Amino acid sequence: MTVRKFAPADAPYARTPGQEAGVFVGNLVDQRHGGPLTIGYGRYDPDQSIDEAIVVHDVMVVLAGRVSVTADGATVTAGPGEVIYMPAGSNVTIRSHEQGALTAYVTHPHWQEAV
Amino acid sequence: MTVRKFAPADAPYARTPGQEAGVFVGNLVDQRHGGPLTIGYGRYDPDQSIDEAIVVHDVMVVLAGRVSVTADGATVTAGPGEVIYMPAGSNVTIRSHEQGALTAYVTHPHWQEAV
Repeated sequence: MTVRKFAPADAPYARTPGQEAGVFVGNLVDQRHGGPLTIGYGRYDPDQSIDEAIVVHDVMVVLAGRVSVTADGATVTAGPGEVIYMPAGSNVTIRSHEQGALTAYVTHPHWQEAV
Repeated sequence: MTVRKFAPADAPYARTPGQEAGVFVGNLVDQRHGGPLTIGYGRYDPDQSIDEAIVVHDVMVVLAGRVSVTADGATVTAGPGEVIYMPAGSNVTIRSHEQGALTAYVTHPHWQEAV
């Protein structure tokens, strides 16, 4: 596999299995490509909330809007250009705010295999 | 390690070993933290160019400006919100343009150990 470039419009957005919120994710690189990383984009409608058991190491880069992550009673909020790191083993609530959000994510190992 | 949030101003920017260009990187998560990922920010002065042998899988999210990566005679250029994936084994030239650039990066395994 050679060097590749991706834009938000390239991602095949779909709801993650098991949740009904307005949160849509689309992988661009994953286990199909032979490498160790999953790469994709996430799109959050306004004021959505999902609970997730993080089973892989998950890095979320906020590109637009704001995202809050609550774990162990503490909340961090990130805006454009900021990064939230969720190590494997975290139980988190991820929330978007009134403007929704766009994120890029990188996980290791692949999260779709692990779910 | 619990959930953490980072901003571009948090990174301890320094030149990467072995290059004199105006390209500065700062890790926020790496081998010191026990996980499998390196996470950091990169800051590019205008019109800089570095040649790199990519020894780890390297995901670059462009936050501001534009970055071009040339590998095997092909060049991709990414702007804000776009992602460039450089698999391990790539020999690349990374260039910034007239406005410089800010990037977030995620690598696996840790690139500073591997250099």
